[in-house]
Amino acid sequence: MRVEILCTGDEILTGKTVNTNYGHIARRLVEVGLDVHWGTTVGDDRASLLTAFRQAAEHADAVIVNGGLGPTVDDLSQEVAAEACGVPLVLNEHWLQRMTESYARRGRMMPVNNKKQAMLPEGAELIDNPIGTACGFAVTIGKARFLFTPGVPREMRRMLDEQVIPRLLKLAGIVGVTRLKRFHTFGIGESRADEMLAGIPGLAIDGEIKLGFQAHYPQLETKLAARGVNADDLAGRLGAAEAEVRRRLGNFVVAEDEQTLEGVLLARLSGDGHTLSLAETFTGGIIAARIAPLSGAETVFKRGLVTRTLPSSGASVEAAARTADELRRDSGASHALAVLMQLDEAADRPDFGATICIGIADPGGTVGRLARLMGSRDWIRLGAAELALDCLRRHLLGLPVDERIDFERR
Amino acid sequence: MRVEILCTGDEILTGKTVNTNYGHIARRLVEVGLDVHWGTTVGDDRASLLTAFRQAAEHADAVIVNGGLGPTVDDLSQEVAAEACGVPLVLNEHWLQRMTESYARRGRMMPVNNKKQAMLPEGAELIDNPIGTACGFAVTIGKARFLFTPGVPREMRRMLDEQVIPRLLKLAGIVGVTRLKRFHTFGIGESRADEMLAGIPGLAIDGEIKLGFQAHYPQLETKLAARGVNADDLAGRLGAAEAEVRRRLGNFVVAEDEQTLEGVLLARLSGDGHTLSLAETFTGGIIAARIAPLSGAETVFKRGLVTRTLPSSGASVEAAARTADELRRDSGASHALAVLMQLDEAADRPDFGATICIGIADPGGTVGRLARLMGSRDWIRLGAAELALDCLRRHLLGLPVDERIDFERR
Repeated sequence: MRVEILCTGDEILTGKTVNTNYGHIARRLVEVGLDVHWGTTVGDDRASLLTAFRQAAEHADAVIVNGGLGPTVDDLSQEVAAEACGVPLVLNEHWLQRMTESYARRGRMMPVNNKKQAMLPEGAELIDNPIGTACGFAVTIGKARFLFTPGVPREMRRMLDEQVIPRLLKLAGIVGVTRLKRFHTFGIGESRADEMLAGIPGLAIDGEIKLGFQAHYPQLETKLAARGVNADDLAGRLGAAEAEVRRRLGNFVVAEDEQTLEGVLLARLSGDGHTLSLAETFTGGIIAARIAPLSGAETVFKRGLVTRTLPSSGASVEAAARTADELRRDSGASHALAVLMQLDEAADRPDFGATICIGIADPGGTVGRLARLMGSRDWIRLGAAELALDCLRRHLLGLPVDERIDFERR
Repeated sequence: MRVEILCTGDEILTGKTVNTNYGHIARRLVEVGLDVHWGTTVGDDRASLLTAFRQAAEHADAVIVNGGLGPTVDDLSQEVAAEACGVPLVLNEHWLQRMTESYARRGRMMPVNNKKQAMLPEGAELIDNPIGTACGFAVTIGKARFLFTPGVPREMRRMLDEQVIPRLLKLAGIVGVTRLKRFHTFGIGESRADEMLAGIPGLAIDGEIKLGFQAHYPQLETKLAARGVNADDLAGRLGAAEAEVRRRLGNFVVAEDEQTLEGVLLARLSGDGHTLSLAETFTGGIIAARIAPLSGAETVFKRGLVTRTLPSSGASVEAAARTADELRRDSGASHALAVLMQLDEAADRPDFGATICIGIADPGGTVGRLARLMGSRDWIRLGAAELALDCLRRHLLGLPVDERIDFERR
């Protein structure tokens, strides 16, 4: 069943208000196994709304309309829905009474223009809003079922879960389960990951298991989406492909699903009873900012040191290792990570570069990693911070710290 | 001229990635006087894309398509555009050469599948992407001009301003020059700013000078957009209103236009020959991360210290002032800023709070500022960092450091 999400309102259309409702509705639908097929945004404009309803009735089986149920003249959803259905608006006595009582309970008279919120297309099914004056409703336009929800996020979210999704699942005849498996890697780009995963049975963009990528530089997210009749069936379908993807992406996998690289690191350090101090030059605190605020870091994170000054010997892997070793002893941490950077003497342009020197010290000694990154200053800074955290991850897991990454130039 | 914004990609459609591109494009179009008429979101799906292109060609005069220009098989924009135009894809030798050279400059071979990014619909107009491998292009489908842009925000934003908007203004027959004046404030919300600016001649939501607000917590952006036949005419129209807005927002203005609070601070410190050290507890490095990496900070930024441990006396303004004073002497900086935070003992819920203690030390002594902020941990952390930087700005400019802000609870 193809579901469309149709958001209305000038503020949303013009970007004045960030449309968080769209993403929330879409994620909830995907989570319960519904297929989000189309998104439309139109303003508070009669002609656009009518066109949008008619087009949605053509390309979707069910449409969630969000917004336009308020008491003011620019709230047009009921009116245009009635026009699209070819029926008049009629007063819903039940909802009028509910609103009147709700105002009375707060010792207030209902303003006259709120009556508009009880005017629904003739024959519409009422969808209850337990926490607001804008009721939802459902009508059929063409072959599609339209479910109208208010724009107030708090009201929409509750109605979505309690009223809208159960109706949609019933319409779709969905009984099975879905799962989205995510791998987060650092060091490979989308094209390389695509090549690395070629030929895994059932895994393709339009395969039984849907493969997708999302680059969040410096990380890449690889996604496997599958559906089964029940949990066992799903595990059977996804299991082998998941294991093969994990094997092929190998050392580059820094985290899975809801995990983050810094969370994985913190859990590992904490689990082994380790503590950590950090020294950063040009990354200017962004490594500390990823670890120090985490819940649980209070027992692991000892000290972060941010400077713009390199050691007198300059930036080298030896200097980074020495810095890490000194910091480890000074701060009393079991582990220390130092990142020294030497920026090329050049303006901030795309092929600007920097030399990154990473040092890690622990009770067993020190290890180092040298890398050249190219790009804008921000790009290099993000890459260097990720590389440093990944080196520490690799070191803690006994993996090679100097495996070549796609972003680096040697 | 009616403009549609058509966003593509499964990640956007399903809400996995928040669609920040839509809002950015819409706001920029409105700022230059273009009419955003429709928004569409579809996935990486051939049939949906084709339908979306055909529908957009009917209800819009110009369409900005965003996304789907990458090197992998789920990037379908060029292919479907060619189909909608009824022409084949042909290799753009110029772009292939540009990509090959760009890889060569980085000492890398271009992966084979990147060649796909130089395949454009026959007759398409190339739209330059100076900072990425996905070139844009323009074609006419039906009566509408379609302009294709990459999904990577940094690339899209630059191309939008430099390539797409000039083409749209020309299509719309909009002549003359436009200017957008921006004020960045910290400490006041949108309704208060709206009240503060009431009654300035010509300045209104639909006035000769268009007034707009954009909240980027913890800052608020106030925008004045105006159009004139030439630069002098424009300066005349905008000048008086701009000065009056600056006067009324007063001490709350932390930066204007492209400036940032941290940039303004750095320029002031640097201009006066000062140096700065920072100590942070629960902000975990995010204050240092805003200043230390800036160009020019190498002569100003002395040391950043990140801990999770409060002084033994706990968090107080006195302890923050003492911490700043000690740090100033230890690090040899002329100025030091210390931020101590005491989080309420509670789970991470909306009405969670924290006490923020800020201390500033300079050769003349110390000053302090106490504040209570409420919200989620991330919300408080961002607010505390902004408050600390703003306190330092106010101190350096001789403004009151303890002027009440809207976010604070006393």
